[in-house]
Amino acid sequence: MSETIGFIGLGNMGHPMAINLLKAGYNLRVYNRDISKTQDLVVAGAKRGVRPRDAVEHGGIVITVVANDEALEAVTSGNDGLLAHLGPGGVHLSMSTVSPATARKMQQLHEQQDCFYVAAPVFGRPEAAAARQLWIAVAGKAEAKQRVHRILNVLGQGVFDFGEEAANANVVKISANFMLASAMETMGEAFTLGEKNGIDRTKMYEMFTQTLFACPAYQTYGKRIAEKNFEPVGFNMQLGLKDINLVLDSAKAAQSPMPFASQLSNRLLAGIARGRGERDWSELTRGISDDAGIE
Amino acid sequence: MSETIGFIGLGNMGHPMAINLLKAGYNLRVYNRDISKTQDLVVAGAKRGVRPRDAVEHGGIVITVVANDEALEAVTSGNDGLLAHLGPGGVHLSMSTVSPATARKMQQLHEQQDCFYVAAPVFGRPEAAAARQLWIAVAGKAEAKQRVHRILNVLGQGVFDFGEEAANANVVKISANFMLASAMETMGEAFTLGEKNGIDRTKMYEMFTQTLFACPAYQTYGKRIAEKNFEPVGFNMQLGLKDINLVLDSAKAAQSPMPFASQLSNRLLAGIARGRGERDWSELTRGISDDAGIE
Amino acid sequence: MSETIGFIGLGNMGHPMAINLLKAGYNLRVYNRDISKTQDLVVAGAKRGVRPRDAVEHGGIVITVVANDEALEAVTSGNDGLLAHLGPGGVHLSMSTVSPATARKMQQLHEQQDCFYVAAPVFGRPEAAAARQLWIAVAGKAEAKQRVHRILNVLGQGVFDFGEEAANANVVKISANFMLASAMETMGEAFTLGEKNGIDRTKMYEMFTQTLFACPAYQTYGKRIAEKNFEPVGFNMQLGLKDINLVLDSAKAAQSPMPFASQLSNRLLAGIARGRGERDWSELTRGISDDAGIE
Amino acid sequence: MSETIGFIGLGNMGHPMAINLLKAGYNLRVYNRDISKTQDLVVAGAKRGVRPRDAVEHGGIVITVVANDEALEAVTSGNDGLLAHLGPGGVHLSMSTVSPATARKMQQLHEQQDCFYVAAPVFGRPEAAAARQLWIAVAGKAEAKQRVHRILNVLGQGVFDFGEEAANANVVKISANFMLASAMETMGEAFTLGEKNGIDRTKMYEMFTQTLFACPAYQTYGKRIAEKNFEPVGFNMQLGLKDINLVLDSAKAAQSPMPFASQLSNRLLAGIARGRGERDWSELTRGISDDAGIE
Repeated sequence: MSETIGFIGLGNMGHPMAINLLKAGYNLRVYNRDISKTQDLVVAGAKRGVRPRDAVEHGGIVITVVANDEALEAVTSGNDGLLAHLGPGGVHLSMSTVSPATARKMQQLHEQQDCFYVAAPVFGRPEAAAARQLWIAVAGKAEAKQRVHRILNVLGQGVFDFGEEAANANVVKISANFMLASAMETMGEAFTLGEKNGIDRTKMYEMFTQTLFACPAYQTYGKRIAEKNFEPVGFNMQLGLKDINLVLDSAKAAQSPMPFASQLSNRLLAGIARGRGERDWSELTRGISDDAGIE
Repeated sequence: MSETIGFIGLGNMGHPMAINLLKAGYNLRVYNRDISKTQDLVVAGAKRGVRPRDAVEHGGIVITVVANDEALEAVTSGNDGLLAHLGPGGVHLSMSTVSPATARKMQQLHEQQDCFYVAAPVFGRPEAAAARQLWIAVAGKAEAKQRVHRILNVLGQGVFDFGEEAANANVVKISANFMLASAMETMGEAFTLGEKNGIDRTKMYEMFTQTLFACPAYQTYGKRIAEKNFEPVGFNMQLGLKDINLVLDSAKAAQSPMPFASQLSNRLLAGIARGRGERDWSELTRGISDDAGIE
Repeated sequence: MSETIGFIGLGNMGHPMAINLLKAGYNLRVYNRDISKTQDLVVAGAKRGVRPRDAVEHGGIVITVVANDEALEAVTSGNDGLLAHLGPGGVHLSMSTVSPATARKMQQLHEQQDCFYVAAPVFGRPEAAAARQLWIAVAGKAEAKQRVHRILNVLGQGVFDFGEEAANANVVKISANFMLASAMETMGEAFTLGEKNGIDRTKMYEMFTQTLFACPAYQTYGKRIAEKNFEPVGFNMQLGLKDINLVLDSAKAAQSPMPFASQLSNRLLAGIARGRGERDWSELTRGISDDAGIE
Repeated sequence: MSETIGFIGLGNMGHPMAINLLKAGYNLRVYNRDISKTQDLVVAGAKRGVRPRDAVEHGGIVITVVANDEALEAVTSGNDGLLAHLGPGGVHLSMSTVSPATARKMQQLHEQQDCFYVAAPVFGRPEAAAARQLWIAVAGKAEAKQRVHRILNVLGQGVFDFGEEAANANVVKISANFMLASAMETMGEAFTLGEKNGIDRTKMYEMFTQTLFACPAYQTYGKRIAEKNFEPVGFNMQLGLKDINLVLDSAKAAQSPMPFASQLSNRLLAGIARGRGERDWSELTRGISDDAGIE
């Protein structure tokens, strides 16, 4: 007989993930603030709740995939929240990108209720979620990770374990975003140096991403940066700055100076100040062109 | 009947390249300052000269693979140098990593003699040279590039063309070194943030280099950085700083600000000031640990 | 007949300021958490309260000089706090260094009670407070500033008006601290360059502070930095970092990139990570020596 | 009877200095490339030469005040240059702003001829030169400094001795320029933070330069920066960048990382790339406004 799990948050990422769980034979109890997003899942067999707590079974597993720290707190806390109903032994599998500080607090709150908080933020975009190609960083108590092991393997193509401190998975996730922004700045500086020497940016992109830097981070963002074509917007500069600032907050708390992250923070802030806050974060590299006097 | 080409500079990189040309059926006239390095090549059929000019045939092709700008000038100029004997239509295929400024000057000097200077710096280490796995950026007059086309394909696994300005291939080469150093600093900052949160650096390395950053640059240097094990020395910090400074010099000339390159320059300079100049350049990341108060 | 005013916070700064007000003929109602600090003021004629509210007269003036944002909120809010008893027309003259965000919130809260919040942070150390040599930045409603005008002139040697938004006086105050730290880093870099060229740091200090930089900021901190003698501790690195981070928070909110402030944040963070958090903030310049490989 | 000294270089700085020496009773033998600049000096009693060497007396003193390293080499070297005619015991008092590397080389060349090279770069603008208000950093052999002691006191209001290595006076001079640019960036960042909070930049300028930063560096440049009025051009951005790059070159040679200097280099480079190279170097602060999205 199939296991029943809760699923809260059916946005661009959560929806395809929930679909994949149904396909893999799980029974789902779903909750989403905007009820229209649950329609096709109900048709496919999911039960729909009207409050976050309705997605929870006593001692069961509930997955959350929400937009940010505030949304996570909103579905977790209070009388209608999931935590008050999760019960001893229950597992909250939190797959959103939130701050390490929030993850730390969440883990404590759950442990006070004798249940588990497992952080499992994902790497990848909606297409990857649909194709079960996500990469997942996971951290939390071993016993709880064991229980969600099969679920994670249904959702992603690879799972990496970062120990028992839930917050650590979030440190890894925001570090990845830092590394992406850093790769963008790096390419932007290199391509602009080339451009000002009369070199075709695209040729540089082609060489680097077929050789030393033949990997998704450089290939995905490098093409946009080389062509200075930042459409469509995937992840905007304001969200990018938010994540870099999470990195800097963690760096401050951990007493770990990060000069590249500081530079990226200023770069993104300048982009936003120039009115590009809603543009794709790869457009941070336009600031490099600005500084080089290129239109 | 086989073509005869000149080959000057039989160091760690040049020697395996010369061997590969012999294997591919070329006749070689070789020159190296330290004659002992030519021994096995002579056994394999190469002719040995006692001056750079001895490697040159009038109107022929001569390859140089030397340590730096000074060495390139030394084998090129003067009565014993290659240029005075290359003659109209001759091609100097310059595969060393030198500054764009030197390449620019060299191309002019060669054109004044009605011969060609083709810049073709290589990406890869001695093992890659031996295995014909080099990547090559090439720039120079089309006619000359055409003539050395087959040679480049014998030596490397991929050739990327950057137009007729020889210096541009060198801009691309030093940009690649900048991008490598930038990737190192990025990983160093991220891994140190992780370490100070109690995360295993190696686990971060594993996740990143199997996913978003699954490419040679991150895989090769990331392992050293994660493990803080910088042996053996491949390319030392002093050479690294020299190349980053070439980047900054080009950036200055091109009026193209590069804040990441500036930060890398200071990072490497601090490493050298602390006595690590002869250590592998990936050890620049120890400065990040120093700043974070980690032994 | 003399005016009676409240005075809350009798630490290193507040105590000499209160003494000066008594000397100038004001009657004082004082409150301090640690009662022993009020002893000599009572002897000199002040009335002592046991709660912050006891220092307040309905519609009167109350001065606060406390350690930080939390302390300001503690003496202001709640049933025992000053705000509930200040009454319409009353003026809270807030002379502590707090964040612009807290000042903004405070001003709103006071206006909701029909009373006034005037921010008047001071520049100077305890000796300057005793000698009535403070410089004061003031901001708040004109009517309220008018009422405290004489008081400010008793306490300081110069008052500078920054308009009606109380928070602006705090922006000016934290900007001054940024400018001090920036002057320190600047001298540290210059003196270290000199030292590594065999020049006596003190000679450089002497020339600069008698000529182009003949002003308190450079003279006070420059001597310590030149001599690398950072005793005694005036304002420690942790407090310094706190203020620089307030600057960066304001910069973020205002969308105003500040690369020097970012660099100072990393410099102070590195000093703290190396165990120097309780040391004088001018010792941030030791990080420059560290990077230059000097013991 | 009056002493006769040579004087080479009668530009904006040199001309008023030469006038002051005549007024103080010295006999002058002058040389300037553009002969028209010598007219009034000849009227006032100076003898005019047609080659640099004509200004030199065997074993005498010759002062140079020229534009840059190249000009200094031009008047010093060769058959018409001063060095070939200075003779044993002669003193070349070099008051131009040149690189430490050039000063080092010059001192060696002079010592090989048994004569002296004393570096004495000046701080101050043409008005200060005319008013004998220059500050002078001096370095060279004690015996030679003794001989020019009275001359320096005629020309400036204060002389600071940096030992026997001539280059050290030049290190001090370029350090001062670094410190000026650093003060500009600092004010620019602070004023812009204020402006974006609705604060009048000029009010901030007034407070800072009457209190903690009441010194020529901040007062002179701060007014321009606060008012964003960068006319007239005193010292342009290209010259500013040249000097900051001399600082970075010295820092590299001395292994002394200077992150503020690096940031200033990028800031100036961006200004030049945007077409502001001929503008006053205080206009580097417009880059801060650009980054903050202010017109």
